[in-house]
Amino acid sequence: MIVTLQAGATLKEITGVIRLLESFGASPSISRDCGCTLVTAATSRLPIDAAQVRALPAVKDVHEDVHPFKRVSRDYHPENTVVEVKGARFGDGSFPVIAGPCAVESEAQIHDCARAVAAAGATVLRGGAFKPRSSPYAFQGLGEEGLRFMADAGRANRLATVSEVMSISQIEAVARYIDILQIGARNMQNFDLLREVGRVDKPVMLKRGPSAKIEELLLAAEYIHDAGTPRVILCERGIRTFETATRNTLDISLVPVVKELSHLPIVIDPAHASGKREYVPALTLAALAVGADGAMVEVHPVPAKALSDGRQSLHYGEFEKLMADVRRFAALRSVQPA
Amino acid sequence: MIVTLQAGATLKEITGVIRLLESFGASPSISRDCGCTLVTAATSRLPIDAAQVRALPAVKDVHEDVHPFKRVSRDYHPENTVVEVKGARFGDGSFPVIAGPCAVESEAQIHDCARAVAAAGATVLRGGAFKPRSSPYAFQGLGEEGLRFMADAGRANRLATVSEVMSISQIEAVARYIDILQIGARNMQNFDLLREVGRVDKPVMLKRGPSAKIEELLLAAEYIHDAGTPRVILCERGIRTFETATRNTLDISLVPVVKELSHLPIVIDPAHASGKREYVPALTLAALAVGADGAMVEVHPVPAKALSDGRQSLHYGEFEKLMADVRRFAALRSVQPA
Amino acid sequence: MIVTLQAGATLKEITGVIRLLESFGASPSISRDCGCTLVTAATSRLPIDAAQVRALPAVKDVHEDVHPFKRVSRDYHPENTVVEVKGARFGDGSFPVIAGPCAVESEAQIHDCARAVAAAGATVLRGGAFKPRSSPYAFQGLGEEGLRFMADAGRANRLATVSEVMSISQIEAVARYIDILQIGARNMQNFDLLREVGRVDKPVMLKRGPSAKIEELLLAAEYIHDAGTPRVILCERGIRTFETATRNTLDISLVPVVKELSHLPIVIDPAHASGKREYVPALTLAALAVGADGAMVEVHPVPAKALSDGRQSLHYGEFEKLMADVRRFAALRSVQPA
Amino acid sequence: MIVTLQAGATLKEITGVIRLLESFGASPSISRDCGCTLVTAATSRLPIDAAQVRALPAVKDVHEDVHPFKRVSRDYHPENTVVEVKGARFGDGSFPVIAGPCAVESEAQIHDCARAVAAAGATVLRGGAFKPRSSPYAFQGLGEEGLRFMADAGRANRLATVSEVMSISQIEAVARYIDILQIGARNMQNFDLLREVGRVDKPVMLKRGPSAKIEELLLAAEYIHDAGTPRVILCERGIRTFETATRNTLDISLVPVVKELSHLPIVIDPAHASGKREYVPALTLAALAVGADGAMVEVHPVPAKALSDGRQSLHYGEFEKLMADVRRFAALRSVQPA
Repeated sequence: MIVTLQAGATLKEITGVIRLLESFGASPSISRDCGCTLVTAATSRLPIDAAQVRALPAVKDVHEDVHPFKRVSRDYHPENTVVEVKGARFGDGSFPVIAGPCAVESEAQIHDCARAVAAAGATVLRGGAFKPRSSPYAFQGLGEEGLRFMADAGRANRLATVSEVMSISQIEAVARYIDILQIGARNMQNFDLLREVGRVDKPVMLKRGPSAKIEELLLAAEYIHDAGTPRVILCERGIRTFETATRNTLDISLVPVVKELSHLPIVIDPAHASGKREYVPALTLAALAVGADGAMVEVHPVPAKALSDGRQSLHYGEFEKLMADVRRFAALRSVQPA
Repeated sequence: MIVTLQAGATLKEITGVIRLLESFGASPSISRDCGCTLVTAATSRLPIDAAQVRALPAVKDVHEDVHPFKRVSRDYHPENTVVEVKGARFGDGSFPVIAGPCAVESEAQIHDCARAVAAAGATVLRGGAFKPRSSPYAFQGLGEEGLRFMADAGRANRLATVSEVMSISQIEAVARYIDILQIGARNMQNFDLLREVGRVDKPVMLKRGPSAKIEELLLAAEYIHDAGTPRVILCERGIRTFETATRNTLDISLVPVVKELSHLPIVIDPAHASGKREYVPALTLAALAVGADGAMVEVHPVPAKALSDGRQSLHYGEFEKLMADVRRFAALRSVQPA
Repeated sequence: MIVTLQAGATLKEITGVIRLLESFGASPSISRDCGCTLVTAATSRLPIDAAQVRALPAVKDVHEDVHPFKRVSRDYHPENTVVEVKGARFGDGSFPVIAGPCAVESEAQIHDCARAVAAAGATVLRGGAFKPRSSPYAFQGLGEEGLRFMADAGRANRLATVSEVMSISQIEAVARYIDILQIGARNMQNFDLLREVGRVDKPVMLKRGPSAKIEELLLAAEYIHDAGTPRVILCERGIRTFETATRNTLDISLVPVVKELSHLPIVIDPAHASGKREYVPALTLAALAVGADGAMVEVHPVPAKALSDGRQSLHYGEFEKLMADVRRFAALRSVQPA
Repeated sequence: MIVTLQAGATLKEITGVIRLLESFGASPSISRDCGCTLVTAATSRLPIDAAQVRALPAVKDVHEDVHPFKRVSRDYHPENTVVEVKGARFGDGSFPVIAGPCAVESEAQIHDCARAVAAAGATVLRGGAFKPRSSPYAFQGLGEEGLRFMADAGRANRLATVSEVMSISQIEAVARYIDILQIGARNMQNFDLLREVGRVDKPVMLKRGPSAKIEELLLAAEYIHDAGTPRVILCERGIRTFETATRNTLDISLVPVVKELSHLPIVIDPAHASGKREYVPALTLAALAVGADGAMVEVHPVPAKALSDGRQSLHYGEFEKLMADVRRFAALRSVQPA
C-alpha cells in the first residue's frame, strides 16, 4: 500500500499513519515525491483496511497493493508480459533458447558458435564482452571489440543477442551493439545501474543474485520498470546453499512462485546453477516442464579450451541433442499451456 | 578407498597409512571389522595411488573406490537398481506416483482417499500413522490403528503402501502392515534406526534431511544397504535455505547428481519442498523431465480440514489433472529414456 | 496459546477456533490430551485476543502463551534455570568449561586427559563412547567400556562427566556411568529419544542440529522438559551455511536470543563449529563475552594421533593458556552480571 | 600462484601450464597483462611444486602464493595493517567504536547524535546520506546535503566520519566531505566501483556481502588495494542463512579466519547482523573478545522515530552503558594482545 500524505503533513500525522500500518503487521517506510510524503507499506501480515487509513488526518490518497512491487506485480497487470526480440518471444508459452559461449574469445570463435547454435535451433546468442570476475587477476573479457564480434555474428545468423552490462559507463556501448542488456547476478542490487539500464529503450535480462530472495528479485525488476523499461526478462541461475555437489542450487520452484506474483517472463540458466555440463540437459528440460519461458545455456566449440566456465559449457553435439529434446517437450506443452 | 590392515597392526603402522592417505588430500578414518583394522579414505582431492598404499607395512588389502559409499555407488553397480513393490517399479524409467494424505485421520478418510488416487493412476498409497512433530503439543498420529486402516485401504484398491517409521520400537508394527518403510528427513542420520530397518526384508524410502549434503544422503543409504536391504528409494523433499517464498528449496539438481553417483532410484516430494498446493503440479512435471524415478504427493478429500499439512495437499480434481499431465510427459520420456 | 475444547466438541466448533486463530496470523495445530481436544497456536503475527477465543462455543479453557514452547519459556519461568552437576554450575553467571577428547580411545588416554583438563580448571569431562558417524565404515567408539573409563577418570579427578546417547537402547548404560546425557546434533529431532532421556533423572545437554532454527531447538528442549527433566543445558555447535572457511558457522547471536526466550543455560562448542584448533580460543572468549553459560572444548594428549576430530582438538598447553584467559574475562563478567 | 608466460606462448603451451596446475588440484584461470599471458591458480588442494611449473616451456616467471589474493594476504605482509583516521586506529589492538544513525535525517539530528556518541567515547561518526534500498519507494537519503551535515557534526565533535558510496558518480562528493568511504554489502562485488574508490586517497570500509565467502571478501579488498588504496577496513555484518530469529547470522568466526589469512583490520556491525537493538551490546563485546579491530553500531536520539533501521538502533543511554563495558573488556585485552 502506498499512502500519499498532504504536502504539509506534520510528523505527528506521518507517525499516525505509520502506527496504523504497523498494527496490521506492516513495516512502513517513508519517501518523498513531488513535495508529498509517501508512506509505503511493503508487506503486511494481515490485509490492511484501506478505509481506516483513508480516515486518518492528512491522508490524501491510498493506493492499495498486495506486494512491495507494483509495476511488475501480476495484480497490476494480470496478463503475461511478452518480450519479443527479433523473433524470440519470452512469455507467450514458447520456450526460446539462448545459447553461446560464456565469453567472446575471438571473432572466429563467436561466429563459429553462432552458426552452430542457430543451426540447432537457438534464437538468441549469448556471449560476454565485459566479464565480472571475483579476482582482479582473472580474464576480464574483450570489451567493445567483443561486442562488435557479437553483433556481426548475430546478424549473420539471424540471432538476437544478449550481453552483460557491468557498469553505467558500459551501457552506451552495449546498447549500441546488443539487443538485450544483461544485468549480472552480482549487480542485481546495484540500484543506480538498474535505473540507468531502465532508461534505455532495450529489453533487459535481470539475473537473480545468489542470495537474493524472490521478492528482492522482483523489487530489482521494479527499479528497471519504474525507470522506463517494462520489457524485463528475469533469470534464475542458482542460489547459495550448503550443498557443494553443484556450484549453486537451482531454485526451480522460483518459476511457479514468480508466475503467481508477476507478469514478467522468467528463464533458467542451468549451467551457472549446476556448474557441470552433464547436468545441463536434464535441468533444461525440467525448466521447460515447470513452466519457464526459456533457458540460457553455454555452448563452446571446444569447452576444454574455454577461457572461462568450460566445465559447464556444452559441446555442439550435446546442444543439438538437447534442442531435439526441447522441441519434443515444448510441443507437448503447447497442447496445454502452463 | 578402504585399506585393510593385518590383525596385529601397530599404532605406528596405522598412522603410516593415514599419513600417506592424507598426502593425497584424503581425511581417513579408522574402524574395526572381524578383528582387522580398516582405514577408510572417504574422499580425496587427488587419485590415491593404490600401489604406494599396498607397499606400506601391515597393509593386507586395498579396496579402491571413488566415493565414501560403496554399496550404493554406481561404480560398484553400474545398472540401475529397480525397486518393485506390487507393480510399482522405481528405477526402470517409469514414473510411479505415490499419493495420499499427510496423516491417516480416520478409516473413512484413508479409504476414500485411496479410492480416489487409485482411480487417478497412483500406484502407491502414502499416509502417516506415526507423525514426527516439532512441537510436543501437535497431532501425533493414530498409531497402529492407522497402519491397519492403511493396509486395508491399500489392499482394497490394489495399491502398495508406504508409511513412516520414527523409532526402532515402531519397526515391527509398520513392517507388519506396510509395504515400504519410510525414514523421515529428521531421522536421516539416526544411524541405529537405519541399521534396524536395513535388517527387515522390506524396501525402504529414505528422505533427505533438510540440511544433508547429497553425499551424506548416500552414506545414510549405505547404512541401510550395509545392514541388508539393497532396495532403497531415495527421496528429495527440499533443503533449508534463506528463501522464504517456499517452505524449503527443492534441490532438483540432486536428480542428475544422484544418477551419476548411485544406482538407487530417486523420487521427488514437491509438497514438502514447496509447502503450497499451487506449486505441486509444475514441480512434479519438472521432476519427471529431470529424470526422477517417481513423485510423492499429498492428496486429501478436504485439504482445508486436514489435521496436518492441508496447505500443501491437492484436491482430488487437481490430482486427476496432474496425473493426466504426468501420463503425457511420461510417454514422451519413454520414447527416449533419460 | 493453547485452547482446550470441551470433550464433545464438533468438527465445526474446532474449525471455528482454528479460523479465529488464523485471523490473528497463527497456524494452529490440533492434538488430544485426556480426552479433550487441544488447539495449539504456536506463533502468531498479532497478539491473539484471548477474550474473543474464550467467547467461542465449546471452548473450555484458554492458556495464553507467547511461544510454541511453554516449559522452557522465560515467560513461564522468569528466573534462570541453574543446572548444577558436581560443582559445575550452568546458568548462575559463572562460565564452567567442559573439556576432553572427542572420543574415548583407551583407559590411559582418558585418564591422562582428565588429569590435564582438571589441573587447568575444567569442571566437566567430555568424551564419546558411542560415536555417530556419517559413514558406516568410520570409527564408532569403544561403547560401554569407554563409559566405564570415563566414569573412573571423572571420579579420580573430581570432574563431572558428559557423554552422548545415540539411541534409546544406550540410555540405561550411559545413565549408569555418566552425569550428563548428551543428545547429539543429528538427534535433536529424534523425538522418541528426547522423551526417553527426559524420563531419566539426569541433566541433559541438547545440541542444536546444524539446520535447526532456534525455535526448533527450544521445542526439542520442551520435549525433554515435558517428559520430566527440567535440567536441560542447550549447546550451540554451528549451523550449516555456504561459508566453507570454517566447518560450520558458529551462530553466536543465538546466545542473546535464547536468553530472551528461555530460562535454560546455553553453552558453546567452538570446536565443532569452526573445525580448526586455532580458532577455538578466540571463539571461547567470544562465548564468554556474549553471555554464554559455559563452553565445551576438545582436548587431546596428541591431537595429531586422535582417532577423530584431531584437527579441532587443543593441545594441553593451548588449553591451559585458554583457561587463564577465561578466568581473566570471567572475573570481569562477574563484576557486572550479563 | 601466478605464472607469467612469454609473450608468444602458444595455446598448447598455455594448456600445458593449466594441466599441470590442475594436477595439483587447482582451477587455473587466464588473463593478459602488458602483452603477457598470466595463468592464475587461485586455490589448490596441494602445495604446487613451483620447480615443476618453472620447467615448462614458455614459462617466464612464477609467483608463488597461497591464496588468490596477494596484496591483502598476510603471507605478503605479515604485520597488521593499521588504518589511522583522526586518532581512531584500526588494527593496532585497540577497539575503536563507530557510532551514529543509520541515515542522516536532518542537521539537528546528526549534530545531536554526534555530540552524544562522542561524549560516550566513540571516535568515528557514521551516517548514510545515500541509502541503498531494496524498494525504489523507500527513503533514499538526503544526498550531498547530508554529507555536509555529517562533516560539520564530525568536525564539531572531533570525530572521524564514514559514509556509504553507492556508485562511481557519488565518489567525488563523499570523498570531499567524509574521511572513510564505505562500500555497502550489496556492492561488494561491484568491481568497477571497487577500483574507483581504490583510486581515491582515502581509507575504505568494505562490508561483506550477505552471501559472500570470506575468500570473496578478501578478493574484493584485493581489487581496492590493487587500484591503489592499502588502507582497507573489512566489516562483517551478517550472512544469509535459514535462521529467522535474527535478521542475518553474525559470522563471528570470520574474525580469526581473516586474522590468519590477511593483515587488514576487521570490524563487526552487530546491528545489521542481528536486526534487534537488544542483541547489539552482547554481540559488540563478543566482537571485542574474539579479537575484532572495532565495532560499528547504530545510535539514534529517538529510535522509534528513525526513518530507517530504528529497530536496531541504540538509545543514547544504552550506548553509554555499552561503551563502559567496552572499556572494561578492552583494558583486559590490552594486557594480553589477541
